[in-house]
Amino acid sequence: MYKERLESLRTMMRSKGWDAVIITGSDPHNSEYPAERWKQVQWLCGFTGEAGDIVVTLDHAGLWTDTRYFIQANIQLEGSGFVLHKTRVPEQVLIPEWLALNLDKDSIVAVDGLCQNASEISAIAGNFTVASVPNMLDALWKDRPAIPQTPVFTIDPGETRASKIDWLRDFIDGRECDGILLSSLDEIAWTLNVRASDIEYNPLVISYLLVRRDDVKWFVLKGNVTDEVTLATMDIVRSAGIEVLPYEDLELELGDMHWGRLFLDSNTINYHLWTQVSCDVVMEPSPVRLRKAVKNPTEIAGMRKAHLLDGAAMERFLFWLESSVDARGDISERDAADMLGRIRAEIPGYRGDSFETISACGKGAALPHYITPKKNAPVLPSHGLYLCDSGAQYDFGTTDITRTVPLGECSPLEKEDYTLVLKGHIDLAMAAFPAGTAGCQIDVLARNPLWQARRNFGHGTGHGVGYFLGVHEGPQDIRQNLNGTPLTPGMITSDEPGIYREGMHGVRHENLILCVESGNNDFGNWLEFETLTLCHFDTSCIVRELLDSREIKWLNDYNEHVFTTLSPYLSADVADWLREKTMPIQ
Amino acid sequence: MYKERLESLRTMMRSKGWDAVIITGSDPHNSEYPAERWKQVQWLCGFTGEAGDIVVTLDHAGLWTDTRYFIQANIQLEGSGFVLHKTRVPEQVLIPEWLALNLDKDSIVAVDGLCQNASEISAIAGNFTVASVPNMLDALWKDRPAIPQTPVFTIDPGETRASKIDWLRDFIDGRECDGILLSSLDEIAWTLNVRASDIEYNPLVISYLLVRRDDVKWFVLKGNVTDEVTLATMDIVRSAGIEVLPYEDLELELGDMHWGRLFLDSNTINYHLWTQVSCDVVMEPSPVRLRKAVKNPTEIAGMRKAHLLDGAAMERFLFWLESSVDARGDISERDAADMLGRIRAEIPGYRGDSFETISACGKGAALPHYITPKKNAPVLPSHGLYLCDSGAQYDFGTTDITRTVPLGECSPLEKEDYTLVLKGHIDLAMAAFPAGTAGCQIDVLARNPLWQARRNFGHGTGHGVGYFLGVHEGPQDIRQNLNGTPLTPGMITSDEPGIYREGMHGVRHENLILCVESGNNDFGNWLEFETLTLCHFDTSCIVRELLDSREIKWLNDYNEHVFTTLSPYLSADVADWLREKTMPIQ
Repeated sequence: MYKERLESLRTMMRSKGWDAVIITGSDPHNSEYPAERWKQVQWLCGFTGEAGDIVVTLDHAGLWTDTRYFIQANIQLEGSGFVLHKTRVPEQVLIPEWLALNLDKDSIVAVDGLCQNASEISAIAGNFTVASVPNMLDALWKDRPAIPQTPVFTIDPGETRASKIDWLRDFIDGRECDGILLSSLDEIAWTLNVRASDIEYNPLVISYLLVRRDDVKWFVLKGNVTDEVTLATMDIVRSAGIEVLPYEDLELELGDMHWGRLFLDSNTINYHLWTQVSCDVVMEPSPVRLRKAVKNPTEIAGMRKAHLLDGAAMERFLFWLESSVDARGDISERDAADMLGRIRAEIPGYRGDSFETISACGKGAALPHYITPKKNAPVLPSHGLYLCDSGAQYDFGTTDITRTVPLGECSPLEKEDYTLVLKGHIDLAMAAFPAGTAGCQIDVLARNPLWQARRNFGHGTGHGVGYFLGVHEGPQDIRQNLNGTPLTPGMITSDEPGIYREGMHGVRHENLILCVESGNNDFGNWLEFETLTLCHFDTSCIVRELLDSREIKWLNDYNEHVFTTLSPYLSADVADWLREKTMPIQ
Repeated sequence: MYKERLESLRTMMRSKGWDAVIITGSDPHNSEYPAERWKQVQWLCGFTGEAGDIVVTLDHAGLWTDTRYFIQANIQLEGSGFVLHKTRVPEQVLIPEWLALNLDKDSIVAVDGLCQNASEISAIAGNFTVASVPNMLDALWKDRPAIPQTPVFTIDPGETRASKIDWLRDFIDGRECDGILLSSLDEIAWTLNVRASDIEYNPLVISYLLVRRDDVKWFVLKGNVTDEVTLATMDIVRSAGIEVLPYEDLELELGDMHWGRLFLDSNTINYHLWTQVSCDVVMEPSPVRLRKAVKNPTEIAGMRKAHLLDGAAMERFLFWLESSVDARGDISERDAADMLGRIRAEIPGYRGDSFETISACGKGAALPHYITPKKNAPVLPSHGLYLCDSGAQYDFGTTDITRTVPLGECSPLEKEDYTLVLKGHIDLAMAAFPAGTAGCQIDVLARNPLWQARRNFGHGTGHGVGYFLGVHEGPQDIRQNLNGTPLTPGMITSDEPGIYREGMHGVRHENLILCVESGNNDFGNWLEFETLTLCHFDTSCIVRELLDSREIKWLNDYNEHVFTTLSPYLSADVADWLREKTMPIQ
């Protein structure tokens, strides 16, 4: 099947005179998770990883992806005619370099300009003739899905869309621009206080938003909209003075802007739209990203509520897990994930999971980005560690939590790893730091206990989390990359160190932490974290000597807080069980 | 006096038609510490701080300097006709911006192009006509000191100058250049294995080094050289195939290079020389900086020897201090600094101090960059903390050590600060980290114990240290600035957290630490630090509860190691005293 698709692409290339075609795994909004319509890489070669780009020439077809997906790519590419090009390895040859090495200088490289970031194409435009062909694969992909149009609804997150638009207008004034085009889907949803479910796990509306001094235009309509929820939303939005227009009309609008300066988001503006703009442009990261990351009091209250209800669901799940694994003996990783999903689905305001649940024991848990099989998933044994990384979208917030719990007897190494990761988690949670500190400057607090034991983990310690938006959002993070964005009060980030031993086991402990003020003195203005996530940490496999007295106190206080806060929301049997689970350790 | 100098400068400006003059505190090699000849800022306005630049227009004269020097500048500028412009403050207006705000677009700005970094001038060259006038102040500064020419001698640091030149030739080949001009004085001294004392505290030779495929030219001779040491050195250098030429001939040489590509060090090449180059240039940081920072086995052995002898001197000094302060009651900060200098001067191979000793008690110690007065320095009381930051240059290495010791009874706050700083010092000294880690990623290890108590310090935690070279050298450091240079085995850095309470007291504990390998495992290649400095930490004012068992163990082990290593080099009375001082605490 994939070989036929590849050949039909090459037939098109020959007829058009193209020497190479680039297909990316992204969408016109540079989304982390694209809708089905834009899973072009998967359609062409069968690869389903989250990161992958394709180059096809008349005698070569390659998929570029990173270390996380090498094994998966090798399996999925078999018989497709595509070969794997490895990235994030020392000897990597990235696409621009590969093209330079393998194509003549006057070659024609065709791209679906809608799905290419404008600045990425600049990297190759100097060497080749770039042919931008929007929706290039439409001719070959007969049943290609349409752009989704799911019901769009409004939320009230504590600041009106009018206020946000005023702020954007102040921003463009300050930058001496006449307008700003928002192309990042989460920024548009944030600005307009709207949500939908156009993209799996992400409550987003595929659209563009153009804010100018005298008008606001929302390019959102895809075909004839009849659903009541969306129609009501559009009325509300229109009543705020916002024009509601067809999605595809943006192109015309941009072509008609012959004067002034337009601010474009350099992170998400696509190549095709960029080429349509006829006025001056300023291309820089959008200011919405940072402002959206700083949650207002309503959003913080919503996140607290989400974590209360989500935490109660997690405790019900862990209670079920502990009582079922031993008793039944046939619970699979998939059964557990499904049970957790069912429990969460009962929560009023639940809008779906915020990402695909990782439910894993043993060697599955040793893969940080494990995908729990839909069928024939491993059955949970009555020993060793079980890892569950999951989260949900609620009308009032987003959650992301990882708990690693013993299913029975654990090995000394499992216990040590469990404790050291918890120690790192606690040390970061207890951090205090002067205003102006960036995540990369405190990341080591979570790693140092592991490093002292010569252990480490290969992913970031913390990512930003949206308010009923993406479970990954910037600009702040807590990782080793030298990102200078200061952590500021109102930002929510995860705290999730881990240890992974290939073929053996994996440990990760994850809470969401809110940056809050912590007083001022002669030495400056101080900040610290407040933990939002509510779910106990199992104390039965802790190696006591590895924790110091402050860490023990934090752990006992946290578990007690979890019990006190959640028990009113739990049935008696779960509450009794949680009382036992949260008894302080000495 | 300064007002007259300013007026004579303005007379010159009027006669030449200049609208503004910029005078920097640097020299033609962008040295951190310039020779007397280049203390032009001091000559013109009286300001003696290490960082300060001047702009003079016909109706304004300003000195730009940073937070460290505000108080000093206000005092020293009084009656000079100059006003202070503050830098490193939120509302700062730096020189390029100030010029843009205060001068017309077609103004003529005169600079001494020799003392201006080439890239700095680019920042203003777009807005104004720049007149580069080498040695501009010569006409006004009648008794201006000449370029120093102190005896130049050779050293044997474990790698021949021939080997270093071969490596430089490989580098220029790799960069498709035909030559490299070294303009940084420590890089030239490192490459040629030569030292002198042209600059106070810095064993450097003011010169330039041009390395090409077929020749090496050292522009170093200033006038007629007659001293035997230098003549012998020049013979040795010539015998290695290096041409020895007058310092001022470089300009002609550069003007004669009409072909090829020359690599210039973007950090230190001055504007005047840059304008003289007639061939193509590549302007980037010199590769010598990084290679020089990684000490070879001979250099490491030399540094160990330097710290052994320097440590014994420090213990003799601290013994003298403790026995004298109480007994005599009239020891001043200056007396103590002088005594330490005398003790060090007895060490064979001592070549002078590596920077001006900070000897301070009370509110003096509360200033991180305190200068101990030459006359009427405060007398040391028999209570409270005394801080001494000092170091020396030896034929075989460079030292830099800070000890804070009680002179008698200390307040609870002094003891707490003393202990927390020591805790931070120890936590960084105990660090283990994967290869590839940069200093900014572990800086917080020294700060976290302070941050937990909502205390902090406003300087870097660690700077690189040269081998019988500058006591400050890059490219690595351990501080909050996002410098991505990885710490690698062989690099030497300081570990010097502190706490400063204005008008009260200051604490700093500083050792030099060597980055060494620490084994490999499934999680990567590990590095750690070995402490080079040998001098006990006083345990009498430690608040025991603030240190955990690992920190106590480190401290007891370190003090025991200091005693065992140094006692053979100490007289019986000092050794007995040190035995007492280094008894383990529980």
